[in-house]
Amino acid sequence: MTSSTIAFHPSLNLRELVARRVPGYSLEAPFYTSPAVFDADMEHIFGKHWIYVGVSIDVPEAGDYMTVQIGSQPILIVRDDDNEIRAFHNVCRHRGSRLCAEEKGTVGNLVCPYHQWTYDLTGKLIFADHMAEGFDLSHHSLKPVHVRNMSGLLFICLADNPPEDFDVMAEAMTPYIAPHKIDDCKVAVQVDIIEQGNWKLTLENNRECYHCTANHPELTVSLFAYSYGFAPKAETAEGLRQYDEMVADRHQHWESCGLPSTEVERLSDVTGFRTMRMPLDRAGQSQTLDTKAACKKLLADFKDASIGGLSFWTQPNSWHHFMADHIVTFSVIPLTADTTLVRTKWLVHKDAVEGVDYDVENLTAVWNATNDQDRRLVEESHQGAKSSAYQPGPYSPYTETLVEKFSEWYINRLSAGLE
Amino acid sequence: MTSSTIAFHPSLNLRELVARRVPGYSLEAPFYTSPAVFDADMEHIFGKHWIYVGVSIDVPEAGDYMTVQIGSQPILIVRDDDNEIRAFHNVCRHRGSRLCAEEKGTVGNLVCPYHQWTYDLTGKLIFADHMAEGFDLSHHSLKPVHVRNMSGLLFICLADNPPEDFDVMAEAMTPYIAPHKIDDCKVAVQVDIIEQGNWKLTLENNRECYHCTANHPELTVSLFAYSYGFAPKAETAEGLRQYDEMVADRHQHWESCGLPSTEVERLSDVTGFRTMRMPLDRAGQSQTLDTKAACKKLLADFKDASIGGLSFWTQPNSWHHFMADHIVTFSVIPLTADTTLVRTKWLVHKDAVEGVDYDVENLTAVWNATNDQDRRLVEESHQGAKSSAYQPGPYSPYTETLVEKFSEWYINRLSAGLE
Amino acid sequence: MTSSTIAFHPSLNLRELVARRVPGYSLEAPFYTSPAVFDADMEHIFGKHWIYVGVSIDVPEAGDYMTVQIGSQPILIVRDDDNEIRAFHNVCRHRGSRLCAEEKGTVGNLVCPYHQWTYDLTGKLIFADHMAEGFDLSHHSLKPVHVRNMSGLLFICLADNPPEDFDVMAEAMTPYIAPHKIDDCKVAVQVDIIEQGNWKLTLENNRECYHCTANHPELTVSLFAYSYGFAPKAETAEGLRQYDEMVADRHQHWESCGLPSTEVERLSDVTGFRTMRMPLDRAGQSQTLDTKAACKKLLADFKDASIGGLSFWTQPNSWHHFMADHIVTFSVIPLTADTTLVRTKWLVHKDAVEGVDYDVENLTAVWNATNDQDRRLVEESHQGAKSSAYQPGPYSPYTETLVEKFSEWYINRLSAGLE
Repeated sequence: MTSSTIAFHPSLNLRELVARRVPGYSLEAPFYTSPAVFDADMEHIFGKHWIYVGVSIDVPEAGDYMTVQIGSQPILIVRDDDNEIRAFHNVCRHRGSRLCAEEKGTVGNLVCPYHQWTYDLTGKLIFADHMAEGFDLSHHSLKPVHVRNMSGLLFICLADNPPEDFDVMAEAMTPYIAPHKIDDCKVAVQVDIIEQGNWKLTLENNRECYHCTANHPELTVSLFAYSYGFAPKAETAEGLRQYDEMVADRHQHWESCGLPSTEVERLSDVTGFRTMRMPLDRAGQSQTLDTKAACKKLLADFKDASIGGLSFWTQPNSWHHFMADHIVTFSVIPLTADTTLVRTKWLVHKDAVEGVDYDVENLTAVWNATNDQDRRLVEESHQGAKSSAYQPGPYSPYTETLVEKFSEWYINRLSAGLE
Repeated sequence: MTSSTIAFHPSLNLRELVARRVPGYSLEAPFYTSPAVFDADMEHIFGKHWIYVGVSIDVPEAGDYMTVQIGSQPILIVRDDDNEIRAFHNVCRHRGSRLCAEEKGTVGNLVCPYHQWTYDLTGKLIFADHMAEGFDLSHHSLKPVHVRNMSGLLFICLADNPPEDFDVMAEAMTPYIAPHKIDDCKVAVQVDIIEQGNWKLTLENNRECYHCTANHPELTVSLFAYSYGFAPKAETAEGLRQYDEMVADRHQHWESCGLPSTEVERLSDVTGFRTMRMPLDRAGQSQTLDTKAACKKLLADFKDASIGGLSFWTQPNSWHHFMADHIVTFSVIPLTADTTLVRTKWLVHKDAVEGVDYDVENLTAVWNATNDQDRRLVEESHQGAKSSAYQPGPYSPYTETLVEKFSEWYINRLSAGLE
Repeated sequence: MTSSTIAFHPSLNLRELVARRVPGYSLEAPFYTSPAVFDADMEHIFGKHWIYVGVSIDVPEAGDYMTVQIGSQPILIVRDDDNEIRAFHNVCRHRGSRLCAEEKGTVGNLVCPYHQWTYDLTGKLIFADHMAEGFDLSHHSLKPVHVRNMSGLLFICLADNPPEDFDVMAEAMTPYIAPHKIDDCKVAVQVDIIEQGNWKLTLENNRECYHCTANHPELTVSLFAYSYGFAPKAETAEGLRQYDEMVADRHQHWESCGLPSTEVERLSDVTGFRTMRMPLDRAGQSQTLDTKAACKKLLADFKDASIGGLSFWTQPNSWHHFMADHIVTFSVIPLTADTTLVRTKWLVHKDAVEGVDYDVENLTAVWNATNDQDRRLVEESHQGAKSSAYQPGPYSPYTETLVEKFSEWYINRLSAGLE
């Protein structure tokens, strides 16, 4: 019972565990099951990297706020009166009460419910009654959290000195994402699910489509199986060649319309990411059950729905699909070693009318089904990882290369954190 | 992530944490969140001090028992055949079964449900079948727990040598409490709520009314805001002077009627306590929504309901309000570092008839509402304390002096326990 | 608060705790309450001994499988195409997913739901798509688990080298059990209950009938109290002599019919067990409310229902009662230090028809009631064991000798594991 023994002993040597990782194989069990590793993940991965948490239009107007919880950290994101998006620790400087308990709201100032200490939207304490004479308001501002708004995608970093290569990602990605104009969208639907499994199993699941054919009947309607990276076989060689030609052709077409589409892969960066626009199968318009646009009112100034799907993946916690009619965006928030929150938001044009331009059921059908299927796969993997019989198994060098890149990134970043 | 790191590492140096506490500031996060500190609290605070657990009339007749759980300790309180109230560990000396599982009941002897080992109401084992020949019943009595009945308020102490200054409290408090004659009351209602927060946040919340105006619309109907200890301001100076004069006047009147009323404050004693009788606002009779008596039949031999409210606070776990028509009494029992039981009992005259003399809804309205409001405040503070951004904040030297006295008492008593 | 202190400190010296156990007394509290001891139990007791998990007819046909979970270990039991019962770790060799999530099912091959890696019923990997060229299927078979089928009772052992004295038990027990022909039965009902108590309290409860008279009104209808091992008393001496004579007489009769019946007791063996056929009271046919057969169609080729009850107990986790009309069989699976699964199966002849030959309510009434009563007793004992006031109490040398044998076996086996 090696894994459980390690998990229960505080003497677990994490550095050793990191050092002996074998490339090309899944991680050792404690990475998925040990509370001690989970603590290290929260400290070194989620505490020191850029974490995707939501979209600009979660807080569309001055005074709008949203809250997110990263591990034990309650975070508050507000749009201030100058329209700037700011993030703070959601903790009063008096006796520590959370300032905002709701997930979203609108305020003039931030007033603590306990004793009415009041902060303006830049985090400055502007009122605290009954304090001692020398009490200095300016020493009790809310503690800020780094936040970046990349064409409408919001990333926060809990570290004092966030990774500087966010700029590299922003420069590379802005031309891809900006045309979809998130600021002109609204969040049509948000769904939170909790998976009974470690967050890294959620990410690994997301980084391959080896499992798609057998598990995702709804999702695969709009996907070309040629894009899954299957092992080369004689009988599929000609089909694959034609597919690659078609993709090259579409990329050329989309780029000529001002939509950058070719792959960018920087998954080994500290702020690791990858993007690519891929054609969709059949009607080719959207990740829907009938592969047609789910929303009549297209995003931005798109005239043609046939622009495929722009996918964007970040390390450690997000993925996104941008289509002509809607955007679906996912953030993964670890809760414990054994449980993970997956938050999915569907965005449509802000002027689209529910029931007229789009139907919520139709908009969300594919990914609600897919999320639930993935949840089950993650949970089954987590149960297996707890067994003493579990040992790291080999990744496919064809269909699981991006899983390997995630695992490698994770190990490198954890290793850097432990130095 | 300093606080979570400390909380997860067994190397947490509690002595150091205690030693570096800064007076005038809230406690460091591990005091609220760490399971290791919680264990220390249960051992040194709840294991070595006088803990308020209920009232004499919870066990009004010989053979009546009640059970309470203090941490992992099931405790049994019985009234024996000589009318003496006794307390025992609720644990059979055979194979450890709890003797009584119900919260209250009536028995002739204490019979273990497992193998019928039978103890009399003084704890002596009087029957054990099938044991070996030399088996000595007298070596297997129930283990006693110290219990004191102070004018009807029951306190237990789990230590072998309880703090001796209980007598100081009893001598000081008896003249205040005895006139309300708890023995002539009955428990009209008991409500248990569980707060998702550390017990010290519950106590700190109880020790100030800085938060009352904004949070307790029902409670503040009957309270004079002048009693909250607000910072002196020019515009309230005259009102406060008049209030103090009125209180002095009322104290003189009540004392002349045999009701001691002026403040006694010994919060730094090992058995720390404080009391004061305060006038009530408006009709001035009771802590009710209309400030009138909730029970027509007054307590004891009171003729006049306008005797204000006698409040009594103890370290570490209780507060009580005695009025002419009813008594409301609170005990706080920590369950885990993150959860706390608050038990509230409303007492009325034993001859009062429900539906005739009092209405349960009206009797309990103010404190059911207030408890729920305080629960939310405690829970928000607990969420904040788990953040790495939490740091001890400054207490108001006006409205939070009694919070400081609680924190100081706690730190001193924990420090003494760790010696 | 000795016990809780020990339970929370990783420095708990388990060897010392084992060494200082006092024979004739219940175990010290940490054996029941400490997560560290629980881990040791799972490693040394449940990880190295033969664990009873079910019956051959849980998987009656080739391709049938059942799953069981032992601690963190998901186990898969299948009947292969040669009709051999095999056990495997239910963990895919690729990325660790459980292969089978359901409790029972029927398959041709074992196909992992994640990426369709496919194993035959002997555990050999026969298909894995998209793997690297040199990938060797034969190095990725399912990891086998030792399994033994003793006249229809299935035992598994998670150790590489299981205790060899299973053969001793099999040789001794086969003549007792085989006549009841489990292979010709079906599982009529299975009920799982979870007890909020440590598994050793469940076993201790099972190893004595000191508690039966006061707690099990349904069960004791069919049992002779003389079999409980009560202390000798003058007033029961003659009754006991007559009972012993009657049992000797019945044993002689049953043995002459080919039904071994006299006691075999090897509870100190590594694979400890005990058996005995006992007469039943009143109608004498079955452990039912009216003591008559619950199933009209008798087991095997029994003509006469009056063959009493053959009981069979194993260390560490099972007991069984074989009657002429049905078999009831219990397995105990620890879940945490504080929770235990008790799984009960009622077996009748495979040709018996529900509603015609037997009624489920009547078949299960006695043991559903008894299990629930025992659950309560176990839970009350567990609550008591968490108290600092708990200390090991003396066993009765008459009615609790088999409890002592269980405790002694446990301590010896844990001690051996720790060496």
